[in-house]
Amino acid sequence: MTKIPHKLYLTEDQMPQKWFNLRSVMKEQPDPMLHPGTLQPVTEADLAPIFCEELAKQELDCTHEYIDIPEPVLDIYKMYRPSPIIRAYDLEKALGTPAKIYYKYEGNNTSGSHKLNSAVPQAYYAKMQGLSGVTTETGAGQWGTALSVACAYFDLSCDVYMVKCSYEQKPFRKAMMNVFGANVTPSPSMLTEVGRKILAENPGTTGSLGCAISEAVEAAVTGGDKRYVLGSVLNQVLLHQSIIGLECKQAMEQLGEYPDIVVGCAGGGSNLGGLIAPFVADKIKGLKNPRIVAVEPASCPSLTRGKYAYDFCDTGKVTPLARMYTLGSGFIPAPNHAGGLRYHGMSPVLSKLYHDGYMEAVSYQQTQVFEAAVFFAKHETILPAPESSHAIKGAIDEALKCKETGEAKTILFGLTGTGYFDMTAYENYLSGKMTDYVPTDADLQKGFDSLPDIPQNKGI
Amino acid sequence: MTKIPHKLYLTEDQMPQKWFNLRSVMKEQPDPMLHPGTLQPVTEADLAPIFCEELAKQELDCTHEYIDIPEPVLDIYKMYRPSPIIRAYDLEKALGTPAKIYYKYEGNNTSGSHKLNSAVPQAYYAKMQGLSGVTTETGAGQWGTALSVACAYFDLSCDVYMVKCSYEQKPFRKAMMNVFGANVTPSPSMLTEVGRKILAENPGTTGSLGCAISEAVEAAVTGGDKRYVLGSVLNQVLLHQSIIGLECKQAMEQLGEYPDIVVGCAGGGSNLGGLIAPFVADKIKGLKNPRIVAVEPASCPSLTRGKYAYDFCDTGKVTPLARMYTLGSGFIPAPNHAGGLRYHGMSPVLSKLYHDGYMEAVSYQQTQVFEAAVFFAKHETILPAPESSHAIKGAIDEALKCKETGEAKTILFGLTGTGYFDMTAYENYLSGKMTDYVPTDADLQKGFDSLPDIPQNKGI
Repeated sequence: MTKIPHKLYLTEDQMPQKWFNLRSVMKEQPDPMLHPGTLQPVTEADLAPIFCEELAKQELDCTHEYIDIPEPVLDIYKMYRPSPIIRAYDLEKALGTPAKIYYKYEGNNTSGSHKLNSAVPQAYYAKMQGLSGVTTETGAGQWGTALSVACAYFDLSCDVYMVKCSYEQKPFRKAMMNVFGANVTPSPSMLTEVGRKILAENPGTTGSLGCAISEAVEAAVTGGDKRYVLGSVLNQVLLHQSIIGLECKQAMEQLGEYPDIVVGCAGGGSNLGGLIAPFVADKIKGLKNPRIVAVEPASCPSLTRGKYAYDFCDTGKVTPLARMYTLGSGFIPAPNHAGGLRYHGMSPVLSKLYHDGYMEAVSYQQTQVFEAAVFFAKHETILPAPESSHAIKGAIDEALKCKETGEAKTILFGLTGTGYFDMTAYENYLSGKMTDYVPTDADLQKGFDSLPDIPQNKGI
Repeated sequence: MTKIPHKLYLTEDQMPQKWFNLRSVMKEQPDPMLHPGTLQPVTEADLAPIFCEELAKQELDCTHEYIDIPEPVLDIYKMYRPSPIIRAYDLEKALGTPAKIYYKYEGNNTSGSHKLNSAVPQAYYAKMQGLSGVTTETGAGQWGTALSVACAYFDLSCDVYMVKCSYEQKPFRKAMMNVFGANVTPSPSMLTEVGRKILAENPGTTGSLGCAISEAVEAAVTGGDKRYVLGSVLNQVLLHQSIIGLECKQAMEQLGEYPDIVVGCAGGGSNLGGLIAPFVADKIKGLKNPRIVAVEPASCPSLTRGKYAYDFCDTGKVTPLARMYTLGSGFIPAPNHAGGLRYHGMSPVLSKLYHDGYMEAVSYQQTQVFEAAVFFAKHETILPAPESSHAIKGAIDEALKCKETGEAKTILFGLTGTGYFDMTAYENYLSGKMTDYVPTDADLQKGFDSLPDIPQNKGI
């Protein structure tokens, strides 16, 4: 018998009752979001037409260390949380590594990922405010599914603008969201002014998260008693996702462990920001010194090849400006890129941490990532999402370094979700049809050319 | 705060270490399987060319009450077990019922169902015997996926014959099995003699489990060092699946509960037999008296409209004969039937229990079942498999009876799996395209005409 169990579930009683606000312990704050018209820091009043009131408050809160999770949110969390932390015994054996590999598995809910952790409070606050519904974008479809599940529960309408190439790659994601009563539109669409404009300028575009955000924001602002909600990038989302990291830290304490290396996949930063929050806090406070590794796709390399600049969060340039690592809101990843992690920017909090040296970043090509995914699946019996598989690849590489050096490091990575709706991509990989894409410097320059020409971006 | 948690996970230490052999406590044994040539009870030697040795032993064992689960099997079980038992608070509230509804959720593994519980030991025993691989059939695809996962882990080849209409309804199931290295063939196929014969007799047939079994058995017997494995019906499968019921009983004891009614979906009986095993044992021993309710599709009503007769387990008539409730091995369910539960017969153990009055049975049409599925999903945030949704419908109806009578009964049902690969069926339901089918007596008679004309079937 192995001494440490294969997996550990905290009990419901042990589940965190508060979210952790990482910004409250950061030595330097991320630069403030700016109003696109005035270039002044945005206020709650500025955000009110777009976001629910409570969420606007959370977005700007950098003082409260902990924020209570509302009771009804806890009740839904308890339908699928605490999520397990799993010791990857078989992966370790297959790699022949002395490293101890743990993963936090967020796939055991119908959204198929961690996204439900933020969808539930966002829907809850919308309901509390008396709204009729919410609008959003989705890339790979996990966020859209999560929001649909949450909205069905709270009886809210849910309009989802889904990046067109994902919509086509994943035909059943739409059906899934429909089961939960959501309306799903491929983006860019003719339903919004900004969608029509983008289509006129780029006929045949396969879309991007940036486009879909523009459409969803417009639909919210013009949709009466609706607000826009977002599944990543924002401070509020990282706040909600902190439950991942809090559970990890608590479970690892029970196991007598602390990670030497924390690895997470990075798109907009929702999972990564939540996973690393308490560990980065330890690092900031000088209590511990774990390495934090963000893994992103080589085809959309915002951290590893982007600029740290003020940029719009969307392609249509209707949102506030945020200072972040970005490829430019005009950047659209190549259509051969499977799965999510296709956002042009990165959470301002994570961007700041990266900029200040608290975090490293690495990028991989998608065939490398799928190779790691299939290897993982065969040994750990779980079919990972392509997004999550970036973290798997990152963790495997760290474990192989340990094999070389003989160090028995403790590696923790975030397994954000399942790949059940990514079978087209898996088929392409297995049949050898999957291709890689690394943007040239010239490709990237086109995106950078879309960065806003404002004083704050001088010299970038 | 609610007193009873939303869900309870036993710890790994609490996980059963032995399977429970229900036959050992039955007052009367099911009639023995017969050799199709001699019509004599089959022996281990008869079964050896088809089944792994250890599994042939288990198939015939009606004396040992408990059988040790091998250590390597326990290790894989611990990757996804114990599975949670969940209190359906929100479903209860939505129904306005005084009943307490619990469900045992087997969907949190990559096979998407309980099928992995038997796939793992079957693959393990094949590996221990030094075989190179196994062959099998699959209907809805959950068993095939489960076996692929288990075979990948033990590095065994895996040939899956998949019922053609499911193969076409669920294009991604094949990809999923391919990820785990399995070979998947739509059945009937031209690869086997029996497949070619069935196709010649019924050109354009959409297949059945019975056909696929014939092909897989032929492939095993002619395939060198391979054996055939089956995901349902057999005694060995019910033995392995007893872990579901054992965990249920133990978890409910921790909650201070005992079910008044146990509801499970019934196809070949794999989940139902495992779920009810310890509860039926209590009933047989006179310790408790829970109602046991099997729920089957109206389009394939083996318990509610079948005959209790000796029949072949497959369409090609190459397997031993089993006495069971059956529609005749020539029965092929209508192609509009979505999901699994399409087997012509029923586990001999469950058939005997039903025959002796220990179990009730009820059938539903598929649109009723999908209505219950969508209702459940919206309230419990889990997208159920169509098969599992039969049990949901059964449990809801029992809860509504409680609402009428005001009785606060405790209902336990088996939520066998997830519906992620059933989105075509969900789409058909949501768009109003799903149709129902109830075989006429004349339709059934055609199936009954295929029953073997042997002395044991006289007067049936």
